[in-house]
Amino acid sequence: MTDFPNRLLAGYRNFMSGRYTDERERYRLLAEKGQKPHTLLIACCDSRAAPETIFDCGPGELFVVRNVANMVPRYEPDSQFHGTSAAIEYAVQVLEIDNIVVMGHGRCGGIQAALDPNLEPLSPGDFIGRWMSLVRPAAEQIQSNNLMTASERQTALERVSIRNSIANLKTFPFVRNGIETGALDVHGAWFDISTGELWVMDEQGDFMRPELNGVDVQAEQTSA
Amino acid sequence: MTDFPNRLLAGYRNFMSGRYTDERERYRLLAEKGQKPHTLLIACCDSRAAPETIFDCGPGELFVVRNVANMVPRYEPDSQFHGTSAAIEYAVQVLEIDNIVVMGHGRCGGIQAALDPNLEPLSPGDFIGRWMSLVRPAAEQIQSNNLMTASERQTALERVSIRNSIANLKTFPFVRNGIETGALDVHGAWFDISTGELWVMDEQGDFMRPELNGVDVQAEQTSA
Amino acid sequence: MTDFPNRLLAGYRNFMSGRYTDERERYRLLAEKGQKPHTLLIACCDSRAAPETIFDCGPGELFVVRNVANMVPRYEPDSQFHGTSAAIEYAVQVLEIDNIVVMGHGRCGGIQAALDPNLEPLSPGDFIGRWMSLVRPAAEQIQSNNLMTASERQTALERVSIRNSIANLKTFPFVRNGIETGALDVHGAWFDISTGELWVMDEQGDFMRPELNGVDVQAEQTSA
Amino acid sequence: MTDFPNRLLAGYRNFMSGRYTDERERYRLLAEKGQKPHTLLIACCDSRAAPETIFDCGPGELFVVRNVANMVPRYEPDSQFHGTSAAIEYAVQVLEIDNIVVMGHGRCGGIQAALDPNLEPLSPGDFIGRWMSLVRPAAEQIQSNNLMTASERQTALERVSIRNSIANLKTFPFVRNGIETGALDVHGAWFDISTGELWVMDEQGDFMRPELNGVDVQAEQTSA
Repeated sequence: MTDFPNRLLAGYRNFMSGRYTDERERYRLLAEKGQKPHTLLIACCDSRAAPETIFDCGPGELFVVRNVANMVPRYEPDSQFHGTSAAIEYAVQVLEIDNIVVMGHGRCGGIQAALDPNLEPLSPGDFIGRWMSLVRPAAEQIQSNNLMTASERQTALERVSIRNSIANLKTFPFVRNGIETGALDVHGAWFDISTGELWVMDEQGDFMRPELNGVDVQAEQTSA
Repeated sequence: MTDFPNRLLAGYRNFMSGRYTDERERYRLLAEKGQKPHTLLIACCDSRAAPETIFDCGPGELFVVRNVANMVPRYEPDSQFHGTSAAIEYAVQVLEIDNIVVMGHGRCGGIQAALDPNLEPLSPGDFIGRWMSLVRPAAEQIQSNNLMTASERQTALERVSIRNSIANLKTFPFVRNGIETGALDVHGAWFDISTGELWVMDEQGDFMRPELNGVDVQAEQTSA
Repeated sequence: MTDFPNRLLAGYRNFMSGRYTDERERYRLLAEKGQKPHTLLIACCDSRAAPETIFDCGPGELFVVRNVANMVPRYEPDSQFHGTSAAIEYAVQVLEIDNIVVMGHGRCGGIQAALDPNLEPLSPGDFIGRWMSLVRPAAEQIQSNNLMTASERQTALERVSIRNSIANLKTFPFVRNGIETGALDVHGAWFDISTGELWVMDEQGDFMRPELNGVDVQAEQTSA
Repeated sequence: MTDFPNRLLAGYRNFMSGRYTDERERYRLLAEKGQKPHTLLIACCDSRAAPETIFDCGPGELFVVRNVANMVPRYEPDSQFHGTSAAIEYAVQVLEIDNIVVMGHGRCGGIQAALDPNLEPLSPGDFIGRWMSLVRPAAEQIQSNNLMTASERQTALERVSIRNSIANLKTFPFVRNGIETGALDVHGAWFDISTGELWVMDEQGDFMRPELNGVDVQAEQTSA
């Protein structure tokens, strides 16, 4: 017997007796024919914002990158290991996904760390400090705004960071090309953990609540 | 109005009228009190292997990193951006999670690419090529084994890669320290997309089907 | 026959045959016994944000000040005409209202003018320019934030301005005294014209969606 | 959670489930295209005389200034903060409204204060005293008339004050200009809280009951 965490085994048992039983054939086909997800979703590691849960997606739908604060670095063709860039390259060039969605969320610990002027390195490697330095200039500008509350500054940086990631996405030649040919759409979204509200980004970069009336009917047609 | 993908909006609508309605209070408390996940789960981006689905986990349970082929690099305290290392640092040092699970899966596109001797760069940046070079030596050794079938070589490298990630995890001083003090357990798992089978790693590094009988009762006690 | 605007006369006719007929006795009593409103509501002149409509209030409930951008100046006991200060004084000292609510709203023209670096005086008197100078320092700080979109800057200043008005309210000795003795509560609110959403201010000055479940039952008890 | 007044939340809930549901699209369009109200309505803060209620107006129709006793000061292009003048400037110069209506009402507390020879300052700032000094000369003349009852003196000053505000309105160059070119009409009205009667001012400054027969038909044509 292994000491694998018991509550994960219990959860797996629920999966097998429930969802997997219902979708056995779908899993079999996805294994045989390969995945063909429609969307690359770049999300945060946060335990409260799982993309498959929020978008009620089944197996085969979302190719998901999750890193702290759902960040995309700029296109840097050097010799380093770029986990997020590798996933983007694979999703666009091999899987030929239709959409890229960068989804941030409220109360993000990474963004909170970026806005903390007294943050000490969490370890000698200071990995979080370096990773969050991707939004350092924006964080500093927002930090200095003493008219907004701490919570408003946090939401502001969460949204600035999504726009920043989307701008960085467009520095990848194959992403830019996909947008230009119409093969690829890039979107931003922000999830409010507290209320369950989803906000989506419009063309000006503003976040708004989407209209959900009539959406399900169209979706059924799309997936039929 | 935005052109946010319709099927994601339809899924979000399902989430709001279904799961969110049932768990509204849980989300509210998780927002108010912060997350306290029990497990850091390092998984692949693959659309067919979402950890929350496979382990039937709700909001607040899993802090999830997803990159191509669920890889962990070695501890490298340099000045680069290390997304995966940053997430591990945050999960262990700030969230004080109890478990780290590295979960691989069958038919992994990243592993397949690593085993392809003729793979061309997917873009001038060759991000996937560089990212998968983390398992290059292992891939080359397995590639040269002409007694195993292509499918067997793939499964072999998927499992070697999980063991490799776990070994790299242990190069992080704070992970090693957590294991030594008993505060942290590190596990491997492998999910077979085709059959839905979960295999977990034992102390020798072998993968086996876990015993599920009696598991759910204990789980109920844990969450009570 | 007068040339009084026809659509106002038509609306008045609707009022008389509808609402007034239903509430004839309430109006008669309010005339006989005088008004005893529970709330002083300081709102904007905007035609899309009438307090009685948004809070579904009948005659006798809200004592309403409306000026451009729902602003409260600081306590200035000089010899000038202070319309808003006079209304606050009358509401607190004569009517002894229980609550003061400062309600701002989205897409406020006054706030938009305050954020426009090129705004020309609208007339030689430049009344709007002078009136909006009450939030000039805040407007300048927010104007300089080039990471937020124009729409985000506008919402930020709308909320800063509400907090500013509430801070100014507390410079009036009789308001401060009412708060200290518990006779008076001061609140902020922000109405989103586009979606109909109401956001209310919490003790930290943050705006959040109020919980409406169960509210009507309590309200019936309160008004019974 | 905030302690926002419960009866306001209950009223908001009614608004959302009732009127807002019926007019959702109208609010959305008003947010998107901006307001274009036909009338600037200058009214009193009194809780029994809400203009939107009396004229049965929906969102987007009335730009509303409310101060104690619905007063308009004279055009004074000095460096002071003039809330009412700012609203008039914005309504005429930016919104280009068609009508200005000054609406007084019976049993007005501000007018009553102006007629009280023994009125003490309500606070050391004496804001009401100073504000009502805008009608001081008229108030003193009427106060001295011992042939009229107290109630008759009050109604008389309420109407004198409306005519006074209209005269002051015409000291604003842009108002005078609008009247001369025919772009702008200026009106007076007086609402009797006790009976619900609306009286409108004719060209001689007299108040009369308007003829309502046939009015609604024209209104339908206007809004068609």
